[in-house]
Amino acid sequence: MTRVIGLVTDFGRADPYAGQVEAAILAVAPRVRVIHLCHDIPRQNVALGAMVVAASASILPSGAIVVGVVDPGVGTERRGIIVRAGGRWLVGPDNGLLLGGAAPEGVWRLDQPAYWRSEPSPTFHGRDIFAPAAAHLAAYIRPEAMGTAIADPLPAPVSLATTDARGARGQVIHVDRFGNLITNVPAGVIASLGDSPTIGVADSVIRGLARTYGHGRELVALVGSWNLLEIALPGGSAADRLGLSAGAQVTARRGPSAFGAGASV
Amino acid sequence: MTRVIGLVTDFGRADPYAGQVEAAILAVAPRVRVIHLCHDIPRQNVALGAMVVAASASILPSGAIVVGVVDPGVGTERRGIIVRAGGRWLVGPDNGLLLGGAAPEGVWRLDQPAYWRSEPSPTFHGRDIFAPAAAHLAAYIRPEAMGTAIADPLPAPVSLATTDARGARGQVIHVDRFGNLITNVPAGVIASLGDSPTIGVADSVIRGLARTYGHGRELVALVGSWNLLEIALPGGSAADRLGLSAGAQVTARRGPSAFGAGASV
Amino acid sequence: MTRVIGLVTDFGRADPYAGQVEAAILAVAPRVRVIHLCHDIPRQNVALGAMVVAASASILPSGAIVVGVVDPGVGTERRGIIVRAGGRWLVGPDNGLLLGGAAPEGVWRLDQPAYWRSEPSPTFHGRDIFAPAAAHLAAYIRPEAMGTAIADPLPAPVSLATTDARGARGQVIHVDRFGNLITNVPAGVIASLGDSPTIGVADSVIRGLARTYGHGRELVALVGSWNLLEIALPGGSAADRLGLSAGAQVTARRGPSAFGAGASV
Repeated sequence: MTRVIGLVTDFGRADPYAGQVEAAILAVAPRVRVIHLCHDIPRQNVALGAMVVAASASILPSGAIVVGVVDPGVGTERRGIIVRAGGRWLVGPDNGLLLGGAAPEGVWRLDQPAYWRSEPSPTFHGRDIFAPAAAHLAAYIRPEAMGTAIADPLPAPVSLATTDARGARGQVIHVDRFGNLITNVPAGVIASLGDSPTIGVADSVIRGLARTYGHGRELVALVGSWNLLEIALPGGSAADRLGLSAGAQVTARRGPSAFGAGASV
Repeated sequence: MTRVIGLVTDFGRADPYAGQVEAAILAVAPRVRVIHLCHDIPRQNVALGAMVVAASASILPSGAIVVGVVDPGVGTERRGIIVRAGGRWLVGPDNGLLLGGAAPEGVWRLDQPAYWRSEPSPTFHGRDIFAPAAAHLAAYIRPEAMGTAIADPLPAPVSLATTDARGARGQVIHVDRFGNLITNVPAGVIASLGDSPTIGVADSVIRGLARTYGHGRELVALVGSWNLLEIALPGGSAADRLGLSAGAQVTARRGPSAFGAGASV
Repeated sequence: MTRVIGLVTDFGRADPYAGQVEAAILAVAPRVRVIHLCHDIPRQNVALGAMVVAASASILPSGAIVVGVVDPGVGTERRGIIVRAGGRWLVGPDNGLLLGGAAPEGVWRLDQPAYWRSEPSPTFHGRDIFAPAAAHLAAYIRPEAMGTAIADPLPAPVSLATTDARGARGQVIHVDRFGNLITNVPAGVIASLGDSPTIGVADSVIRGLARTYGHGRELVALVGSWNLLEIALPGGSAADRLGLSAGAQVTARRGPSAFGAGASV
């Protein structure tokens, strides 16, 4: 069976770093499929990276592997880890990047250099430690062979929206190419708010959920392909319309009500 | 035999959407080869997308599949289709995106959810409907199994340059990274104009065709790798020299003559 | 065995050129693995391209092939070549792009059109000549079958830093996404300068080498993943701090001393 390794990094595509990670994987496991999921995490933004790693893992088939590299501490004493969560494997730094999704079923500290590139560069663990470790996982080497189980991985630096009985208070975590505002309010929270939740973002209030981007000329709220609440403007850019970017406050409440994000919730 | 699926979208590369499409393909057909041909169609520009889909299909081997996603109507009542044209298969929305090239030999409306991801997102048919359909085609499922033949697909929104006995009148459809002006005048039209056509673009007149970008210091006209007329500046940017962008008028005429694009043709 | 072909070009990713090169490779060798190492060489910058081709080849496994395309002379009389160097194969134009690394063990001029796409475009040898030639190499066709041995390939346009008994004088050749200043001073030269070399860049002096980006708040010098001297700012951008870009002068000297790049060396 061909296994899949997805890559989520802050490397960008202008430098050859992403390609070098792919090469390091193929050197160990020449038949694995490598998918470049996202290399444009804002540099060193572990919080957003954690959201994208989690969303990406959930879209890959069971048994797939994600290598995540947003790693301001590369080469310091921070640990490298393998995480088993939600039926997938995650490999990367122990800085919370891999802990943004399903609760981990196991975490192992990478401490067996026999499974790394020889003479790993202290500045490029993505290529020299995480990529070979992921490739060995794809070749069915067990994590116990590559590391030691640990119980104290660092948590994701920003978690999902806070929720209470009345709904959720969260924020915009990403503006995509289409100007859609991706929030940290999960689909499950929205589903719990009934048929017609009220969404507040900045001074705007959106009543009810749309099924799609395609209708009307007003702002819509919907659960998009990230499995998160999004604010969109059909045929336009919600980010431009509202003048908002990542960090803007968002609320979601049960049923019709009249408040903006600035109101007390 | 390994089959090839090429992707042409307006997703950009900064978001994980393109990688998610690849993952959805591999989940169905793990041995297919996925080529990221172009994800930078200007967002929701179906006209340019149609040109790139057609040019991309013609460069892929016979039997190859192109998934095209420039889809402002995603999630509305617009249909999803499979097109058979020029020995290739095209999968995407029924908005003209797939109809910019060879005349279709068959068109099928996608209406069998058994071949889609379960619970497809209304905002991401590229991943949840078109990608699995393409992967099933790669696995030799026949289009008749996945849909119903239709006779009325929407035409491409902008067709090629208009032609008459004297030549062609068209426009710049794209400026590439090198500043070359790619037009919608096909190679076949240029070939019909004899050995030394006259090309008019804005107020400039270019006499005769160059074979390549590499010579001289003046603007040249040539048939480039898109199999379309291009205007180029050796060692520089024709777009910068002329101050032009997509939409600029272009004319092509038989033999030497003295006129610019602004003159009556 | 699956062979690997890496691509290094100035095509960018916004146009479909890189995908077309991949398609042309797969048309000849459907099982080869294609890695998009870097398509963002500044356009027509053969000097930087030569450094990236050399660095990329060294990271790929022995026997791998790199197609390099930074080719302002495409379609003119400049030759296309295959280079054998350092256990890898390099395919591209004879303009120095392929000669920035290990000394060549053999160079062949591509002159057998039977191994090219039929009717190659004069503007796109990357797709129509170099890609098929690389794919045939991957299929174990010998270079002697595809071309004629030559002894006079053009040298790389900018070589590595100049060295003498006291150290090296070089320059910044690239600023990466993290603001790290990549220089043309090789790791081997730095290793020869003892435990605590002195690095000068613009008016700054950095004493000693760091092992990694991760510590402190001051500029550090280190040998990074390009196997070249880099100047970095932990948690920030060295390029922004120093206001420098490619072309800035750099010196490396044995042991502690007090000078900047502007001092006599």
